[in-house]
Amino acid sequence: MTTDVSDSRAWRKLQKLAQNPYDLAAPGALGQEGRIAELICASADLRLFYAAQRVDGDVLAAFQDFADEHRLVERFKEMRRGAVINKISGWESENRQVLHTSSRDIFTDRPKEPDSARQATAELKKLESFLHEIDEQNQFTTMVNVGIGGSDLGPRAVYEALQAHKLESRQVHFIANVDPDDAARVLASIDPSRTLVSVVSKSGSTLETRTNEELVRSRFEQAGVDPARHFIAVTGKGSPMDNPEKYLRSFYMYDYIGGRYSVTSMVGSVSLGFALGAEQLKAFLRGASEMDDACEIYKVTDNMALLLALLGIWNHNFLGCPTLAVLPYSQALHRFPAHLQQCDMESNGKSITVAGHPAPVKTGPVVWGEPGTNGQHAFYQLLHQGTEIVPAEFIGFLDSQYGEDITVEGTTSQQKLLANLMAQVVALATGRQHENPNKRFSGNRPSSMIIAPRLDPLNMGRLLSLYEAKIVFQGFAWNINSFDQEGVELGKVLANRFLEHMKANKKCGTSVEEQFLAALYK
Amino acid sequence: MTTDVSDSRAWRKLQKLAQNPYDLAAPGALGQEGRIAELICASADLRLFYAAQRVDGDVLAAFQDFADEHRLVERFKEMRRGAVINKISGWESENRQVLHTSSRDIFTDRPKEPDSARQATAELKKLESFLHEIDEQNQFTTMVNVGIGGSDLGPRAVYEALQAHKLESRQVHFIANVDPDDAARVLASIDPSRTLVSVVSKSGSTLETRTNEELVRSRFEQAGVDPARHFIAVTGKGSPMDNPEKYLRSFYMYDYIGGRYSVTSMVGSVSLGFALGAEQLKAFLRGASEMDDACEIYKVTDNMALLLALLGIWNHNFLGCPTLAVLPYSQALHRFPAHLQQCDMESNGKSITVAGHPAPVKTGPVVWGEPGTNGQHAFYQLLHQGTEIVPAEFIGFLDSQYGEDITVEGTTSQQKLLANLMAQVVALATGRQHENPNKRFSGNRPSSMIIAPRLDPLNMGRLLSLYEAKIVFQGFAWNINSFDQEGVELGKVLANRFLEHMKANKKCGTSVEEQFLAALYK
Repeated sequence: MTTDVSDSRAWRKLQKLAQNPYDLAAPGALGQEGRIAELICASADLRLFYAAQRVDGDVLAAFQDFADEHRLVERFKEMRRGAVINKISGWESENRQVLHTSSRDIFTDRPKEPDSARQATAELKKLESFLHEIDEQNQFTTMVNVGIGGSDLGPRAVYEALQAHKLESRQVHFIANVDPDDAARVLASIDPSRTLVSVVSKSGSTLETRTNEELVRSRFEQAGVDPARHFIAVTGKGSPMDNPEKYLRSFYMYDYIGGRYSVTSMVGSVSLGFALGAEQLKAFLRGASEMDDACEIYKVTDNMALLLALLGIWNHNFLGCPTLAVLPYSQALHRFPAHLQQCDMESNGKSITVAGHPAPVKTGPVVWGEPGTNGQHAFYQLLHQGTEIVPAEFIGFLDSQYGEDITVEGTTSQQKLLANLMAQVVALATGRQHENPNKRFSGNRPSSMIIAPRLDPLNMGRLLSLYEAKIVFQGFAWNINSFDQEGVELGKVLANRFLEHMKANKKCGTSVEEQFLAALYK
Repeated sequence: MTTDVSDSRAWRKLQKLAQNPYDLAAPGALGQEGRIAELICASADLRLFYAAQRVDGDVLAAFQDFADEHRLVERFKEMRRGAVINKISGWESENRQVLHTSSRDIFTDRPKEPDSARQATAELKKLESFLHEIDEQNQFTTMVNVGIGGSDLGPRAVYEALQAHKLESRQVHFIANVDPDDAARVLASIDPSRTLVSVVSKSGSTLETRTNEELVRSRFEQAGVDPARHFIAVTGKGSPMDNPEKYLRSFYMYDYIGGRYSVTSMVGSVSLGFALGAEQLKAFLRGASEMDDACEIYKVTDNMALLLALLGIWNHNFLGCPTLAVLPYSQALHRFPAHLQQCDMESNGKSITVAGHPAPVKTGPVVWGEPGTNGQHAFYQLLHQGTEIVPAEFIGFLDSQYGEDITVEGTTSQQKLLANLMAQVVALATGRQHENPNKRFSGNRPSSMIIAPRLDPLNMGRLLSLYEAKIVFQGFAWNINSFDQEGVELGKVLANRFLEHMKANKKCGTSVEEQFLAALYK
């Protein structure tokens, strides 16, 4: 069905075009002939400005050819409709559908994949009724979310992003790390009698989560609080955690949703619903669903996620940039790059194709980032004058969240934020000539800018779904399986081997594990 | 005095050796002949395990030749003794000494550079007397640190790292971003009458800091609290902020310390002293000073910072790895990678040598990271099976900070943390053969492990200083100026141009700035 990218006509065309990419540093090139206004892709209230990418009409046409040739949009549509695409042909693999999009396909009578959408609707109803109950009781002010990886990073990033929108006197804490100091710090700050603990694990057997749950349970018991009335489970139906004797309530997640794509399932919805209330949670889900629909557009320059995906591939595979910086100009998004780092690198950090062959081209980049303007005073030196070219995706908002702002020297803080964002885009692209070699900027460092009116639940949902789809489209393009994570298994096996040796507490031996332990505890 | 690396005999030797680096994935190679116990560099209570780097005796000998040939240790000694090394020969530049090491060279009668050490001692005395005063008054429970970049990231990272050691009922909040939501969130959580605000800016004119200071001042005034009795200044002597009418107290920083190296100066000491008390602050400074002394050892394998620097160069320049992941297995260090990202990338993200010539080799890598075990459930997939090789520096501790731990399945959480850390080192290095191509691990992915007994002020000081010195050594090796940051200037100029246009509020125009603004606010 699909061909490897190296066999592709459009890929070879792009290789040829990459020998002479658009020169943003040429005088006037960035602002030429309405380029800035023209190279904008709009979707709902989000806009992607990509004039500062090293592309021209020929490159965009080749993007379209590539997308068509590799059926990128069709494959996205097939995914939403339940195709089994989490697999490696001819080898043992997960062999599953990929239906995170169904968890928000709940605002229509005709969902793309009815069975999973029905399950999502049922869980959401259960959650709404539970939220209503605790509103009535007025007992709980705090939720502690115990989970790791996909059960932590995404929900935490979105919770942080939307704090300005949360219900008064509701807060959520997150415990993820098996580091006992992580739990200790959270436990020191809560009142167990007013706290719900949401334990999140699809398998019900994640080591870190089980360990932290035990730790929190014992502290609740010490405080004379019955865990069975304070703990809820978010887990797979029938998992060891699906046990009404131990949990006040269970919410289900399904094996057709991977952890890193699970923010809009019960994994994120339970803590976000607690913090934001049901209506705002639904606005968030609606935003995500809208963006999913917009990903079914065939025209590359009208499909924001697809365009973002192809711009990323252009920079990574054709212009040779090994990393991608995601730089939100909003402090509230301070954990969003960490979520994307997971979603992107765990999905596309792969070396074999879906056919089980070695990937013929580089797959996913290293994704990293911090909020601006902070980053400007930190690592931007390397972005502007370093020997590595780092493509950047800037994210900005026209208005602030809290509406508390101050005018200093004639402009507001929000204006300063946007002025700085745009200044970086221009500086990276155009560079600057200078007699003093230390004040020269080579330019031609590509970036995009994603702009929304305001960071609210609706736009956060759109933004989340935009990036999920971007990552999926890139996986399709590289022809890899973006939905498994075999690369984390070996570490688990070896960690258990180390733990067995620790339990045995033998002081010598010749295995690698024994040698490390002997040296460590010498 | 110094030669470019491309002219170096040892560099060419390393190029030759890199054609056939140590094969960690060969059966038995990692544990061969006591390699694990032998490739350890100890300094005070810190140990660097580097058996999982692709080095052997020949490479280590070439490291020594390179260090000797380029006088790396002598140059470090010259730096500490006041040499003017922040400069580009023949061009306008900062032309300054580099004396962050003096800010902790205060435990001896014979400091390396007496004038700056005397200034450091005087400021520390002032701070101790101020801390004593506020202890007596018992009025202040909270400090808000207003600063950005070096005046934020380092102090924040260390404060977070040492929360387990802070004085009861003392807390510090940080406001950095010009995003008004950042300040709003902090201001919502404090009681101005019990809060000190420390405004940190060397020049006294940093845009973000000035803006945020105004915002906080106006909120204090609205609350009926006199800012002049609650605001303190950390700034250059004689700066616009050095004004007793506006500030309760001023503490000085000097132009021979760059922002990203300023944690142990008053920049970090004021907030850390407030949180930890004077004695623990001094333990932190003492740890940093001890490590500085250990950096003057000539033998590469006994000089931890120098060895770490050369291992980094080996991976970056010779084995072709564009990034470096710093992965602390301690939740308390969750902001330490962000500090190192700044310190490293702002120092060594340069393209010209100290002679003003184009750098003949790649300079600083992209530095990024998140705490483990969290990262294992996030981006480690790419580390193990991606097409980019990412060298890693793991940081771990034998004991936890809070001492609150739980035994699950026969091992404590702290043991699980260390077992996981070591498992990653082994998995990355050795890889795994497997029939199923999706379960194969290629191995030969290099990493180091830095281990200390416990994360406390003393070891935190050592760790901070270790990395500062590593970065300095790498800058010496690449023969670049690690102490200026001309690369951030163009963005500032362009941001002001955008702000001028925003103030004018014109709706049209043909400049790049006007086109962006017209599109943005359409």
